Amino acid sequence: MTSQLRLCFRIAFAAALAAPALSHAQRHPSIFINRTEAAAIRANAARYPLLRKTLDAARAMMTQAFAAPMDVPQPGEAGGYAHERHKQNYREMQTAGTLYAITGEARYAAFVRDMLDKYAVLYPTLGAHPLSKNQAPGKLFHQSLNEANWLVATSIAYDCVYDFLKPAERARIEKNLLRPMADWLSVTHAKEFDRIHNHGTWAVASVGMLGYVIGDTSYVNRSIYGTKRDKTGGFLRQLDLLFSPDGYYMEGPYYIRYALMPFFHFAEAIQRAQPEVGIYRYRDSILKKALYSAVQTTFPNGIFPPINDASRTMAIDAPEVVLALDLAYDRYGANPNLLGSAALQNKVILSGAGLAVARDMAAKTTTPAMSWSSVEFTDGPDGKRGGLGILRSGTGLDASMLLMKYGVHGEGHGHFDKLHFIFFDGGREVVPDYGFSRWINIEPKFGGRYLPENDSYAMQTIAHNTVVVDETSQNEGKESAAEKVWGERRFFDAKDPAVQVMSARADRHSPGVAMQRTMLLIKDARFSRPVVVDLFRLSSGADRTYDYPIHFRGQLIATDVKYEGRSTKQEPLGKGFGYQHL
Amino acid sequence: MTSQLRLCFRIAFAAALAAPALSHAQRHPSIFINRTEAAAIRANAARYPLLRKTLDAARAMMTQAFAAPMDVPQPGEAGGYAHERHKQNYREMQTAGTLYAITGEARYAAFVRDMLDKYAVLYPTLGAHPLSKNQAPGKLFHQSLNEANWLVATSIAYDCVYDFLKPAERARIEKNLLRPMADWLSVTHAKEFDRIHNHGTWAVASVGMLGYVIGDTSYVNRSIYGTKRDKTGGFLRQLDLLFSPDGYYMEGPYYIRYALMPFFHFAEAIQRAQPEVGIYRYRDSILKKALYSAVQTTFPNGIFPPINDASRTMAIDAPEVVLALDLAYDRYGANPNLLGSAALQNKVILSGAGLAVARDMAAKTTTPAMSWSSVEFTDGPDGKRGGLGILRSGTGLDASMLLMKYGVHGEGHGHFDKLHFIFFDGGREVVPDYGFSRWINIEPKFGGRYLPENDSYAMQTIAHNTVVVDETSQNEGKESAAEKVWGERRFFDAKDPAVQVMSARADRHSPGVAMQRTMLLIKDARFSRPVVVDLFRLSSGADRTYDYPIHFRGQLIATDVKYEGRSTKQEPLGKGFGYQHL
Repeated sequence: MTSQLRLCFRIAFAAALAAPALSHAQRHPSIFINRTEAAAIRANAARYPLLRKTLDAARAMMTQAFAAPMDVPQPGEAGGYAHERHKQNYREMQTAGTLYAITGEARYAAFVRDMLDKYAVLYPTLGAHPLSKNQAPGKLFHQSLNEANWLVATSIAYDCVYDFLKPAERARIEKNLLRPMADWLSVTHAKEFDRIHNHGTWAVASVGMLGYVIGDTSYVNRSIYGTKRDKTGGFLRQLDLLFSPDGYYMEGPYYIRYALMPFFHFAEAIQRAQPEVGIYRYRDSILKKALYSAVQTTFPNGIFPPINDASRTMAIDAPEVVLALDLAYDRYGANPNLLGSAALQNKVILSGAGLAVARDMAAKTTTPAMSWSSVEFTDGPDGKRGGLGILRSGTGLDASMLLMKYGVHGEGHGHFDKLHFIFFDGGREVVPDYGFSRWINIEPKFGGRYLPENDSYAMQTIAHNTVVVDETSQNEGKESAAEKVWGERRFFDAKDPAVQVMSARADRHSPGVAMQRTMLLIKDARFSRPVVVDLFRLSSGADRTYDYPIHFRGQLIATDVKYEGRSTKQEPLGKGFGYQHL
Repeated sequence: MTSQLRLCFRIAFAAALAAPALSHAQRHPSIFINRTEAAAIRANAARYPLLRKTLDAARAMMTQAFAAPMDVPQPGEAGGYAHERHKQNYREMQTAGTLYAITGEARYAAFVRDMLDKYAVLYPTLGAHPLSKNQAPGKLFHQSLNEANWLVATSIAYDCVYDFLKPAERARIEKNLLRPMADWLSVTHAKEFDRIHNHGTWAVASVGMLGYVIGDTSYVNRSIYGTKRDKTGGFLRQLDLLFSPDGYYMEGPYYIRYALMPFFHFAEAIQRAQPEVGIYRYRDSILKKALYSAVQTTFPNGIFPPINDASRTMAIDAPEVVLALDLAYDRYGANPNLLGSAALQNKVILSGAGLAVARDMAAKTTTPAMSWSSVEFTDGPDGKRGGLGILRSGTGLDASMLLMKYGVHGEGHGHFDKLHFIFFDGGREVVPDYGFSRWINIEPKFGGRYLPENDSYAMQTIAHNTVVVDETSQNEGKESAAEKVWGERRFFDAKDPAVQVMSARADRHSPGVAMQRTMLLIKDARFSRPVVVDLFRLSSGADRTYDYPIHFRGQLIATDVKYEGRSTKQEPLGKGFGYQHL
């Protein structure tokens, strides 16, 4: 797509937004599921196993919710009861709303109404959450990010039950709860709202979706264009800058996994409320590329490579990916590999898109399998800041996958790990990435916040499978310096399945040292498994110390290198850059 | 059963053996599967899924075997190619023989014949294996134990194809291979043959089974009564001494798992060749108790508790347990819990017994689940040498299991671990046993032999969840001393599912120190999971140092005990008894 054509879309988009809004009461938008889709789901639930399963799970969740007393507690610490209760509440509201749309049963709508009423009483009494530490605070939650999560789900729930509510009920809920929360997110914390970062995406999606539901174009506009309406922030800016032209997300797969939900929820809302805009075609269909690139980075078992600050267990069946995959399948067209991914997910969303996936899955006589090819993603908004190479060999769970990282730093969650590699083989990460250092949802461990060891170890170069120069991390472990440089791709050739190769340089990460790593994935009949060949060339004008860590996840069986055991005393390898932990 | 009654059986048994043997050619014994069973398997394979699955796997194994060149290599190192090849060869012969019995297809019988011919050429050229180290050597394998494994499987194969072979072929094979091997096991290594130990059981089973197949009662008699025919060794003596009256096997579950195969294979052969003996009723049906007690010790996921020298992954679906379970089910009668165990095994043996299990499983509309109750096993041949207590709460995989060990030492594989406990909860060992220290089948790691660390760490008291006195293992880590003492049960009460309790003493394991441990498994509505209460009382006239290790398998989240991290230097905790490794 040329830049001229892209410009056309933007103009069309702006024009559409500027058009006079229809009377809201006449045309309620249905940002997630409409009456036609609901009828089709009712008609086909028994025929499509994935759909039935998802519907049964939703009903079971609500059965449990109805059985317990409804609770909207005072805010608490992350990972603690109140925090988890508020999270569960928005999940239940979203599920109840969707089930009301599908079944028309009043008890589901009444559940959403009653809970919103409780929130509408509590919310005006709250100030900023006292335990926010370094983040922008929410009121219900310690960080505004969770508040935006809450508002995305609740906007869908509110949308579904909108016509069920009396005007006075709507007025009370919007005045005391929904508008104050949207203002908190977009006015009080305007800076967070305008961030080109997944936190910003959650914020704009939540406020923009609410805008459509309650018919307030000012919420919609600030979400699309940023609080200053000049595209220095907002959804379009995020779509421009957070992805490379290939759709690779610069914070890495774990964060695109998380960001896929606001990106796709908001895009779907825009598509439904203002289809003339063509948001799904924006930037040469960047949302399609975003979903595909995310799914294509997964290990053969469906787990996302834990690049940068990332969990080692987050997988393709996360609800965010289910949402994005179903919508991409529906909006961009069927794809056998996507259906293979959906088979790993083993659930769908409860909308027309989920129906389409469930229908196509039911038509298959054998379960589709995910089987991606080798692929290279460019990095940086212009696609010229290095990239990520993935070589694959074999099929299904038994496939091997070699990944090398030579792109941008990736902002606050980035690790100092250029030319780092991961090797997945025989169903597991054999040479793994350490991922992040935190205890998700464990209250006594700072509520799951990042631990000091995330900075002192997990981010440092020595925690990765790449050379460390003079026991010092790349760019001396400074984010500001690391953000200014990136890896440089040399070549990537996966045409011959017997010898696949990728090569990249990092010359600006350790002063005075030029580094090139060339990795080959070789399939040869003389070996039962594919073999990795690793060529690492370093050159420097001065004497240097090079450490070459390989964090092998297994047992050392035999070696022709003589080594000395330290069985009487062990001391840390060094004093900083992660060495103090080794 | 009174001792008088037991005596009756023994007399009957001896009388039967002394009866004049029938002409062998007239009545070939069929020690594993006969023509009636083969016909029933053919008739029902399509109807019973477990049977079909097992049969398909057997056929697939032989398809692979037929596709590769037959190889009978010169003996090699444990874990290496030749060792594994000889193991695979006997598995293939046994499978081919059984398939010949079932299908009548000549290619299966010819496979056994051709392979036996190759062995009959190789075997006479071999001397004792040079790599035997501390064990009695075999010729094909480094230890005679493996040779007995080979002969058990091959006796079944030979039995199945006996009538297919020409008399000259049989004569050659028996003269050059089978008899010399049986003599090697029972004459050259008579001491090993007479051992009251699982190695002895393998030896007597292999020689006795061959004796039935080739019609040599001298082999049968020495196997039953020992080489001196006076019951100082042999199968009956093993049945008398290796089990407590409850059927608990004094070496522990991992070794009974292994020993179940020769015990049941030989018993089944005796039953078929001389049914009048009633071997299955011997010692108050001790073989029934042996199988039941083994299965009843498993964790809810079917893995055997790794007590003593034991693997941490050996499970109920091991072929030895499949064999014993199917035969016990068939010989001693149906049992729902046994069927639940068979469901975990997900395969059967290819004989009338396996057919019975597959038939009853096919009749179930839902998959049976294994759900054992709390149970205490006595230890020692007289049942008066302490025991093993198992408290359980909950059902299926989610059940909790608390095990305390207070029996005998358990011979060469025993650990110095009285009053040690294991706790299984939430689908895994939360407070585990370390098991043994070896690398099964890894050639560069001494072929899987026990490592020096098995003695220096795995066996020592500190490696277990029990108190260590003065940094010294129980009985100073000396097997001879430990064999002379055992734990003492105090009480065991599992009647009330809310409060189950077991208590035992160990007063002769650390000189001058009396120890009593009382463990409770409590189910209370105020806790989401069962709770363990551990009361450990130690008394001594002098000052002592007590270490109370709990090898918790998980993450320390919070503690109200202040502790100091050792982040700058670590040194071994001590100089011996396992402390040097910590």
